[in-house]
Amino acid sequence: MTLLIISGSSRDNSNSEFFAEKAAASYKGDVKWIRLREKTIRQIHDQRHDENGFDPVKDDHAQVVEAMFEADEVLFATPLYWYGMSGYMKTFIDRWSQSMRDTDVNFNARIAGKPGYVITCGGDQVDIKGLPLILQFRHIFEFTGMEFKKYFIGEARKPGDAEKSDRLNQLEQFFS
Amino acid sequence: MTLLIISGSSRDNSNSEFFAEKAAASYKGDVKWIRLREKTIRQIHDQRHDENGFDPVKDDHAQVVEAMFEADEVLFATPLYWYGMSGYMKTFIDRWSQSMRDTDVNFNARIAGKPGYVITCGGDQVDIKGLPLILQFRHIFEFTGMEFKKYFIGEARKPGDAEKSDRLNQLEQFFS
Amino acid sequence: MTLLIISGSSRDNSNSEFFAEKAAASYKGDVKWIRLREKTIRQIHDQRHDENGFDPVKDDHAQVVEAMFEADEVLFATPLYWYGMSGYMKTFIDRWSQSMRDTDVNFNARIAGKPGYVITCGGDQVDIKGLPLILQFRHIFEFTGMEFKKYFIGEARKPGDAEKSDRLNQLEQFFS
Amino acid sequence: MTLLIISGSSRDNSNSEFFAEKAAASYKGDVKWIRLREKTIRQIHDQRHDENGFDPVKDDHAQVVEAMFEADEVLFATPLYWYGMSGYMKTFIDRWSQSMRDTDVNFNARIAGKPGYVITCGGDQVDIKGLPLILQFRHIFEFTGMEFKKYFIGEARKPGDAEKSDRLNQLEQFFS
Repeated sequence: MTLLIISGSSRDNSNSEFFAEKAAASYKGDVKWIRLREKTIRQIHDQRHDENGFDPVKDDHAQVVEAMFEADEVLFATPLYWYGMSGYMKTFIDRWSQSMRDTDVNFNARIAGKPGYVITCGGDQVDIKGLPLILQFRHIFEFTGMEFKKYFIGEARKPGDAEKSDRLNQLEQFFS
Repeated sequence: MTLLIISGSSRDNSNSEFFAEKAAASYKGDVKWIRLREKTIRQIHDQRHDENGFDPVKDDHAQVVEAMFEADEVLFATPLYWYGMSGYMKTFIDRWSQSMRDTDVNFNARIAGKPGYVITCGGDQVDIKGLPLILQFRHIFEFTGMEFKKYFIGEARKPGDAEKSDRLNQLEQFFS
Repeated sequence: MTLLIISGSSRDNSNSEFFAEKAAASYKGDVKWIRLREKTIRQIHDQRHDENGFDPVKDDHAQVVEAMFEADEVLFATPLYWYGMSGYMKTFIDRWSQSMRDTDVNFNARIAGKPGYVITCGGDQVDIKGLPLILQFRHIFEFTGMEFKKYFIGEARKPGDAEKSDRLNQLEQFFS
Repeated sequence: MTLLIISGSSRDNSNSEFFAEKAAASYKGDVKWIRLREKTIRQIHDQRHDENGFDPVKDDHAQVVEAMFEADEVLFATPLYWYGMSGYMKTFIDRWSQSMRDTDVNFNARIAGKPGYVITCGGDQVDIKGLPLILQFRHIFEFTGMEFKKYFIGEARKPGDAEKSDRLNQLEQFFS
């Protein structure tokens, strides 16, 4: 079994990545990471309704999507930026609409049924103000046919806060 | 009085822009548009906690923010992509975190109290699946001190659908 | 075709009922009303897991449920009390859990596929603070297999406010 | 310091009460319980706008409200019934609108600033389908001026499930 962690954090020493790491420690299988800030992913240009469909885009999107398909399970780790997933993550997911129309990719069949997890982290009443993000991921998973297995909402503001979190015990058996 | 419409749509002939236009027809004052797809806006690199703060970024972000401050009211128009605002819009808003720390910008004081509006548009049970986006904007407005005046959820899938919408009458007196 | 309006309002001259009436004016078929405040409906005593199941309850619940089955479509009209449906409505719906276990009632089969509508009304930023109620109804309809057709959120505080609402035009073709 | 737990469960041997008990074990102070199913609380008759205001109601409501004021902190424990608080709890809270207009009660002043907690429990994807309830409580607390301190979402279906929950460790330091 393999788990892919896709991180939407925009900096090193990320609290959301720390939480994801803690959770992954309970994973029985291989764990792989992709940090979107190290990739080049362009905004979608919506050509769903163009006669010739989407123009090909030269960036790292296809490679990340392929990694997602190859993994048995996918964990999306994102800081809560402005009460939603980070722009890195959103830009990545928006482009799924393009991948779905690429017949070579076979997006729908390869993602359907895949277990999905969400870890997010914020500092401003995150337990409540993070809920729209969870609701959004629910819809995303539903639309793709992924299975929403579990989420974790962490509280942290400054670099290093996650390590001192009193919620770490919730992550000890995150996968189990 | 001036209204700035910031559009997060990723294509011309956009349904969300059509709805925004209809709404703006009832605006008593000047209406200005910014289409984010025509701007270059880079993802945020979170340096909030770096000793020297954020590195300056050369793109169009500051200019859009300045236009936002100069307007009396701001309407955010975004298609519902993956049950949230588009990556264009999210990337733009994420960078506010940087602007807020730029003492030359005076972000907080200039945005506080500004009336905000949201128009979104989607095709998959948008009245329900668009609600996390509305909840998210509520938090965004609250955090900045903007006043959440009103929102409109449109239903449309293909280019041209908005023109045939049976909700256009809801927009006739959107500003009034 | 018949529409049953179940009202959870706790007073005559109700704003939510006024909005429901306006909506019903566009219904092509018979319209029937049940006002829960005129019925006696007791709180559920959860005996789902008792050996002998639920004790029979003598009140008007069964009769309202039967009316719901006989109607082709059902509109739930409730004021927004404390950011949720009224206690009248909630008490009524809680008891569905009992009806579902009554083999004489055949609840699941008779409600599945039935179109459902929600009209609510409140005065404190109802467009936003009413959203948890809409999300809750979504889950309720989903669980029963009802189809969530449409909702309307009205704004009104004092008796008579609904009549002066600038949203009445949204109700003109509510059913159509 | 005293904590009042108000339970909206409709049966003995309640899972939500079990979770509340576990949480309360970490409370440094006295813990008091009120089980609404053992009280008589009538539905509200909305007379907010009647010339003479509300007619007095003879039931246990005033007594529970008084206990709420006397406690330093209040924990609302409710099963998730139909994706919301139970009818017992909702009926109780609806009547606050009456208490607020009773000048002898001094509701607003006595509840403002009081820390509030929510524990709920359900069996059908409760982590996601319980979110509207949390959002609703947020609005309730905001309106009264209570402080939303913390919530816990438990998973349990049958009597006894709570005892076997793998989330009990989250409750060990619920108050701390």
